[in-house]
Amino acid sequence: MSGGRARILAVGDELLSGSQVDTNTGWLAGELQRHGILTAGGEVVRDDEPAIAAAVRRALAEVELLCVTGGLGPTLDDVTRHGVAAAFGRELALDEAALTDVRAWFARRNVTMSDTNRRQALFPRGAIVIPNRHGTAPGFRLELDGRAVVVLPGPPRELQGMWADEVLPWLVASGRVRAPLPVRAFYLFGLSESLFAERAGAWMERSAEPLIGVTAREGVLSVTLRASSAEPGPRAALEARAAEVRARFAAELYSEHDWELERVLCAALRARGATLTLAESCTGGLVQALLTGVPGASAVFRQGYVTYSDEAKEASLGVPRATLVEHGAVSRETAEAMARGAVRASGAALAVAVTGLAGPDGGTPEKPIGLVWFATAFGGEVQSTQRLFPGFGREAIRRWAARTALWLAWRRLVGG
Amino acid sequence: MSGGRARILAVGDELLSGSQVDTNTGWLAGELQRHGILTAGGEVVRDDEPAIAAAVRRALAEVELLCVTGGLGPTLDDVTRHGVAAAFGRELALDEAALTDVRAWFARRNVTMSDTNRRQALFPRGAIVIPNRHGTAPGFRLELDGRAVVVLPGPPRELQGMWADEVLPWLVASGRVRAPLPVRAFYLFGLSESLFAERAGAWMERSAEPLIGVTAREGVLSVTLRASSAEPGPRAALEARAAEVRARFAAELYSEHDWELERVLCAALRARGATLTLAESCTGGLVQALLTGVPGASAVFRQGYVTYSDEAKEASLGVPRATLVEHGAVSRETAEAMARGAVRASGAALAVAVTGLAGPDGGTPEKPIGLVWFATAFGGEVQSTQRLFPGFGREAIRRWAARTALWLAWRRLVGG
Repeated sequence: MSGGRARILAVGDELLSGSQVDTNTGWLAGELQRHGILTAGGEVVRDDEPAIAAAVRRALAEVELLCVTGGLGPTLDDVTRHGVAAAFGRELALDEAALTDVRAWFARRNVTMSDTNRRQALFPRGAIVIPNRHGTAPGFRLELDGRAVVVLPGPPRELQGMWADEVLPWLVASGRVRAPLPVRAFYLFGLSESLFAERAGAWMERSAEPLIGVTAREGVLSVTLRASSAEPGPRAALEARAAEVRARFAAELYSEHDWELERVLCAALRARGATLTLAESCTGGLVQALLTGVPGASAVFRQGYVTYSDEAKEASLGVPRATLVEHGAVSRETAEAMARGAVRASGAALAVAVTGLAGPDGGTPEKPIGLVWFATAFGGEVQSTQRLFPGFGREAIRRWAARTALWLAWRRLVGG
Repeated sequence: MSGGRARILAVGDELLSGSQVDTNTGWLAGELQRHGILTAGGEVVRDDEPAIAAAVRRALAEVELLCVTGGLGPTLDDVTRHGVAAAFGRELALDEAALTDVRAWFARRNVTMSDTNRRQALFPRGAIVIPNRHGTAPGFRLELDGRAVVVLPGPPRELQGMWADEVLPWLVASGRVRAPLPVRAFYLFGLSESLFAERAGAWMERSAEPLIGVTAREGVLSVTLRASSAEPGPRAALEARAAEVRARFAAELYSEHDWELERVLCAALRARGATLTLAESCTGGLVQALLTGVPGASAVFRQGYVTYSDEAKEASLGVPRATLVEHGAVSRETAEAMARGAVRASGAALAVAVTGLAGPDGGTPEKPIGLVWFATAFGGEVQSTQRLFPGFGREAIRRWAARTALWLAWRRLVGG
């Protein structure tokens, strides 16, 4: 395979029925990679004991570390503990200490523990219990001939907490974690993959040192350069290529650390002691929701406006009725008036306004669905621009428009 | 394995490095299930030709239909077409018609096509090209001895469009799709899995007809009952059990169709000709972003308020300074004043206010991080309640609080 040392196994009918997306594989792979362990691959199986057992055996034949997630709940459809026990040919036994922990978790919350929760203290013989301070289901690990299986519950909050509390310290202590491979990441806005390849030119060749990976998502292009080892040669090649990316894509590059534009924008606002406000129509609060997701956002964001109707644009932001009547809600004039009004009403240094047609209804030949107008007001001056997201669908138009708003705010702030 | 007829293979380094989560597997599995095809399992592999080829061979040894996603981009790191060709022992050949389509896509957008995009017209010999009206990368399918591989690009928007345009019609025409198995879904709010199991009692037993699946996410419990066949016996057992769920969990059940509370709430508002407004503090626009994600939300939502600072709560919602000083921003009194003020300012029939401590800083012993106050104003009367989300982390507190706000709005609207 591709030389990875770990595999991930996600368990759950809900992951294979459309009712839930498995986010744990991506998260765990990221954590492993950050600590120098490449993930060779992942698998998703149903809540089915033989399927789980077969997947565990298959993974351990290939790699030295398998992370299993999900199927540790109290209900009878959860059989991950049974499947892992079967793969190792072990029986399940009740762990009294774990049962005490599960009881204590309920007691701390003044909730009566139900009998079904006793299942959560069953483990394959020989397993080391992994305590769970974030929920009721303890995990466990099993080692055999230098290979290890780590089993964690499915809820991301519990899994991530247990990873930090217990699993990572054990990986370090047992010498499984080695120095991360040298990596450089670049986050660019507004370039397609093709255009990037075109402008990057010959060094996109596949066998080159460093390896290059390019991914597009919501207007952001993530470019990752990865050295094949930590030796001086590959390191120097990596740094030379990184300098080239910085020079060629200076206009599009917004970070070498954060994919999240909202984090980059918040940091830039903090550095300048500036505040931001939002006047959102078609994005309906999405930009503000992204922004306030950043810890400490309250230092740069005090209030914002979701003005979905024409009346709200008039009442909250003072957009003149004449502007709305003459040019419509989706127009340069309305976007600019919204940005001006938001600065006036909030006293923020920078305002971004977004107004567009997210569909599914309301498009015309002149103003098709996917048309979005943006305006920024900063230092007494208003700038505006439009984007067209054709054929994207409502949710994608909203998400791309939200990212574009963050990008325009950041450009305006750092570029003047 | 578990009797599934399909498998899903997601390709991409980015899915195994933490930079992106694979949402395609869950989406495709849901589509397949809706059309009567159970997915036995999924796999995630890196952008690595031998790994892709091995996974394709393994899947086709087990099931009759394999859906592959990702790795069809124009850059040289994308090798899915090579891997699938290798699994079938075929060569890649340029498809002139597909090349014309790729060229036309660029021409329609007035963008110059780069040479790298020629790769996107390469297909294994014998493959049927699947046109892509939503992006540049066409997909393809290959059949051999009654088994089929369908290969689609990774961007969800393109994949989902091509699925509807091309793949589903072909599945129907080729007789692969059969009648869906009878299923009933129930969405309950505010119950833990354990409490559900406790109250459900003996019929949670594993071998029972129908099969039962329970999943918890952001305060919502999804309960799925699935008949083992479409015969009268299993159907009757399914309906009997469904009636029992409705009776036992009447207070928690909000939908048998939509997980998304925001859809259920929008529909309830529309049915009553009522409008809603939001006054958000700790959720920072998240509730409004969820709400306006629903097509047609503009019929029930005109405007909302993101009042992050005390000053904003005073200025936009008229929360008395004395209330903020005496009781603090996170209190019953402030939440109630926010809800009252939002009704007054917007003229909406129903207002929901959310104010809490999402962290990471700002908690005290009396008001710990995770404490959130909610208020609803409706028909001249204000009600309020608090929730504690202890140890959840900032993002989870915000998401749970947003769902709780939607739930409280819905309860208030339908329950009086």
